[in-house]
Amino acid sequence: MIDETDKKILDILQRDVNTPLREIGAVLNISAPAVFKRIKKMKKMGVIRRETVIIDPKTVGMDLIGFVGIAAELDKLDKIVSTLMNIKGVLGIYLITGEFDILIKVIARDMKSFRDIVIHKINEIDGVVRTTTMISFETKKDTNYIPLL
Amino acid sequence: MIDETDKKILDILQRDVNTPLREIGAVLNISAPAVFKRIKKMKKMGVIRRETVIIDPKTVGMDLIGFVGIAAELDKLDKIVSTLMNIKGVLGIYLITGEFDILIKVIARDMKSFRDIVIHKINEIDGVVRTTTMISFETKKDTNYIPLL
Amino acid sequence: MIDETDKKILDILQRDVNTPLREIGAVLNISAPAVFKRIKKMKKMGVIRRETVIIDPKTVGMDLIGFVGIAAELDKLDKIVSTLMNIKGVLGIYLITGEFDILIKVIARDMKSFRDIVIHKINEIDGVVRTTTMISFETKKDTNYIPLL
Amino acid sequence: MIDETDKKILDILQRDVNTPLREIGAVLNISAPAVFKRIKKMKKMGVIRRETVIIDPKTVGMDLIGFVGIAAELDKLDKIVSTLMNIKGVLGIYLITGEFDILIKVIARDMKSFRDIVIHKINEIDGVVRTTTMISFETKKDTNYIPLL
Amino acid sequence: MIDETDKKILDILQRDVNTPLREIGAVLNISAPAVFKRIKKMKKMGVIRRETVIIDPKTVGMDLIGFVGIAAELDKLDKIVSTLMNIKGVLGIYLITGEFDILIKVIARDMKSFRDIVIHKINEIDGVVRTTTMISFETKKDTNYIPLL
Amino acid sequence: MIDETDKKILDILQRDVNTPLREIGAVLNISAPAVFKRIKKMKKMGVIRRETVIIDPKTVGMDLIGFVGIAAELDKLDKIVSTLMNIKGVLGIYLITGEFDILIKVIARDMKSFRDIVIHKINEIDGVVRTTTMISFETKKDTNYIPLL
Amino acid sequence: MIDETDKKILDILQRDVNTPLREIGAVLNISAPAVFKRIKKMKKMGVIRRETVIIDPKTVGMDLIGFVGIAAELDKLDKIVSTLMNIKGVLGIYLITGEFDILIKVIARDMKSFRDIVIHKINEIDGVVRTTTMISFETKKDTNYIPLL
Amino acid sequence: MIDETDKKILDILQRDVNTPLREIGAVLNISAPAVFKRIKKMKKMGVIRRETVIIDPKTVGMDLIGFVGIAAELDKLDKIVSTLMNIKGVLGIYLITGEFDILIKVIARDMKSFRDIVIHKINEIDGVVRTTTMISFETKKDTNYIPLL
Repeated sequence: MIDETDKKILDILQRDVNTPLREIGAVLNISAPAVFKRIKKMKKMGVIRRETVIIDPKTVGMDLIGFVGIAAELDKLDKIVSTLMNIKGVLGIYLITGEFDILIKVIARDMKSFRDIVIHKINEIDGVVRTTTMISFETKKDTNYIPLL
Repeated sequence: MIDETDKKILDILQRDVNTPLREIGAVLNISAPAVFKRIKKMKKMGVIRRETVIIDPKTVGMDLIGFVGIAAELDKLDKIVSTLMNIKGVLGIYLITGEFDILIKVIARDMKSFRDIVIHKINEIDGVVRTTTMISFETKKDTNYIPLL
Repeated sequence: MIDETDKKILDILQRDVNTPLREIGAVLNISAPAVFKRIKKMKKMGVIRRETVIIDPKTVGMDLIGFVGIAAELDKLDKIVSTLMNIKGVLGIYLITGEFDILIKVIARDMKSFRDIVIHKINEIDGVVRTTTMISFETKKDTNYIPLL
Repeated sequence: MIDETDKKILDILQRDVNTPLREIGAVLNISAPAVFKRIKKMKKMGVIRRETVIIDPKTVGMDLIGFVGIAAELDKLDKIVSTLMNIKGVLGIYLITGEFDILIKVIARDMKSFRDIVIHKINEIDGVVRTTTMISFETKKDTNYIPLL
Repeated sequence: MIDETDKKILDILQRDVNTPLREIGAVLNISAPAVFKRIKKMKKMGVIRRETVIIDPKTVGMDLIGFVGIAAELDKLDKIVSTLMNIKGVLGIYLITGEFDILIKVIARDMKSFRDIVIHKINEIDGVVRTTTMISFETKKDTNYIPLL
Repeated sequence: MIDETDKKILDILQRDVNTPLREIGAVLNISAPAVFKRIKKMKKMGVIRRETVIIDPKTVGMDLIGFVGIAAELDKLDKIVSTLMNIKGVLGIYLITGEFDILIKVIARDMKSFRDIVIHKINEIDGVVRTTTMISFETKKDTNYIPLL
Repeated sequence: MIDETDKKILDILQRDVNTPLREIGAVLNISAPAVFKRIKKMKKMGVIRRETVIIDPKTVGMDLIGFVGIAAELDKLDKIVSTLMNIKGVLGIYLITGEFDILIKVIARDMKSFRDIVIHKINEIDGVVRTTTMISFETKKDTNYIPLL
Repeated sequence: MIDETDKKILDILQRDVNTPLREIGAVLNISAPAVFKRIKKMKKMGVIRRETVIIDPKTVGMDLIGFVGIAAELDKLDKIVSTLMNIKGVLGIYLITGEFDILIKVIARDMKSFRDIVIHKINEIDGVVRTTTMISFETKKDTNYIPLL
């Protein structure tokens, strides 16, 4: 497992992946090479999965976020999930408690393309029994920043 | 707005923010400085909000993802949202259609700390009428990668 | 009450209010003045409420149709209805059976202005307990033509 | 797209399609021929779909308005909609968010003929899974007037 | 149709079918034979369906009253109803608005025999999709007396 | 408690309260006075609550039967029930399992008078939190005949 | 049936099955052999089903308690129940009123093994139509002690 | 933590707390004193909470098992739970996911005493917003035996 110093490094990198090693080291009172070594270890361990840019969806015309609750035939759950994995625009897939079996998060250009995903793509999946759709009027927060400290 | 070349750059950077400019330029048949200029423009425009590391929540002991539907007194909606913004572990806040007014995504260490957030933190917010909780048994996908191509 | 000939006239006028009296008379085997007399009578009786143009909402940028179910404090129902009557964009108000007391039909420019109506305007009404919103992805039919024949 | 003057013309015509061109022109400070030209353009553009009479349903014995939520097999959605289009009394067909896929508005003479539509007509449609019916006790507003100003 | 005097007679007979004609006549200021004639007419018209004793269910060990909402395949609705008609203990069958198609009222000796009706008898009916059961803890009122005055 | 012979008498009287004692006695192989004695006993015991006529509601213009589920503040349940007892048209009051606390059966002349009962009368009762209304499209069975054999 | 003295014995034994007969006798003012005789009788009658240890599930790593509502095809209910009887971890099976036909209580090591039971084991049962899962965040009480006094 | 041998001992004791130590030892290939030592340790650790008799509720006239879902004001949750803890007949209290905050299991003599608990006892608790009751028609399984092997 990772220690408190690792967590502090992750916290800094989550805010800005380009923070210089020296700067990170200065904050944590360790040397830059030590920071480098820890980051390398966390990449190897799979703690750091990816280094990426975060895009503001509105600026690229992906204006619509919605959630779809899916009730499924349970013996087809695995297949349904693996098909959902490959539908463009499906950003999250969660097996959940409650009356639905799967909750998915979808991003789309507009109502029409959202519906195309829900009706045409999800519908092609064998074993989907019932869906309920919730559209986000407005997204107040949508981050991948995980609080570690 | 951004053009197709910008989108291709964003797609590459979403996969790996550290891809060398030269490599990007080679793929797109433009010069490295042209790539640099476009990235700079997109940062200024707010298209690129942040450069970050993506952490695997399980490796850092954040094992539990859940969603909470909140029915609110509508005249207190703004205050509720601004309080939710500051609750550690609340990664998404969506104003949605349907029977709930707000859907939030929460990440927590375990059931107990999840419940602390739901019962103690969300409860302190004036105007919350009713909540429904859905826990993710298993997270099959949870990405911030936005498909642009 | 109106007779079968009246109904036929209404059917023609619903399709095109500008159909010449003579043409209507020819179809029904009565004289144009007889048609005129019947139309006049039906206006007086309140059968014909208004002569109007039907606008295609999309062409004027009113792209969003939604329905809102409202559960109300029943002793405030009359006041709630009379307030709803004056909210721009509320095209239909129905007191209905089932779990909601009122169902309203709303037209708006976009998601944001729709939500402004739901959250800010409807919220200002005292006695509204709970609302559920359904957004129309796509309107397949939306007519005022009443089948009489 | 249409401009502010067009919108004012539409607003007047929605209130009374027979308003003389001269009268409209006087309000808008343009000539009657200019008004005529704009109306002609808006008909051509499809902004004005129809000129019609609005009937008071009660006076013609169409006393009952109801809404039916329909959950459908999604791969049969298109066929279901096209069948619904031809059922007499179905005035509105909306593909909606939430637990139902389609919401329809129905007008009928009485409870019995309403039920005939719901049970016998809608039932003949292959792919309808579940329906929920809401009857309007009282219609407080039901207009096609679209607010443009 | 029946008149006010008929209604008064019905009201008296509902309270006690054995009220002497003379006594009824005295209350209504008409002769006993006139009362007799009116009762005869109302039997012939079908206004009076039956003369009966009302039993207190508890005293005969029929302790349990419950309601069952039934969602049905609509094309089998007629057959389902005609089968329900013949199930002993089913006292009421109503085609209703809302999420269920049929609501039935059932009386039974105890929980076990109630469940036998719901699970074994209702289940044998082809076309029943889903049922919801509500048991009456306590029956505060259960009358066939129709208020006419 | 009553015995099998009593039950047979009750069954006959439920079908026709005017069946001659002799006729009943013949069927049961007992004397007419013995039948009389048993009936008298059952009246005294409260088994037979009332002798009455059963009216066909439609013939007297009571065309609408509906059910209302009431969620109540539980500490006001007794008062709510005693008020409901005195509302004309409320034929049944049941304290039930499930999401509602009270289910009532209402009979009314038409939609309008039904709604007056639901909105104005039931609403005057302090402690009613939420109501759901189900209207009977058609009453297929509605009897007070209790099966004893 | 058992008497008050028996109930007092049962109450003591429920608290501690090892309470000496003499001690029980002293409390109840009867002899130890009389206590013994009563216990023996209650075992024979089936009042006492088992003598057992109660384990604290957390201490043995059975951390998760959940409930699953099951809607079933009713003609397969008996088979479903008999299959559920043999699923390890299913501690309670109740045929219930309301929208579900069966409610089961499940205990499991963790979310994953809980889901395995719900999805893989329960799913293998033919006739299960729909399930809803509720997870216990925290178990405040879970006892088999039946209050008899 | 406990080991596999401990689990086997617990499994035996759950089936019959009176199994002789020697017999247990023979099965597990350890000495009786070793079994004794392990049991003593598990009592000390709190693994074994209680040694008790399991009563068949029907034989003691506790015929009714039901579940009540409680939606609560969250800031009063702790108080509500501590009051529920002391209500006779409440055997289980679970803080659960989904639309209710608390699920309780109740045992009672009959419908009437069940309702007394739900309406009068639970109602006295400040902060209870809404309850839903499910009654068990039939209890197919209800055990405290925890599968460890």
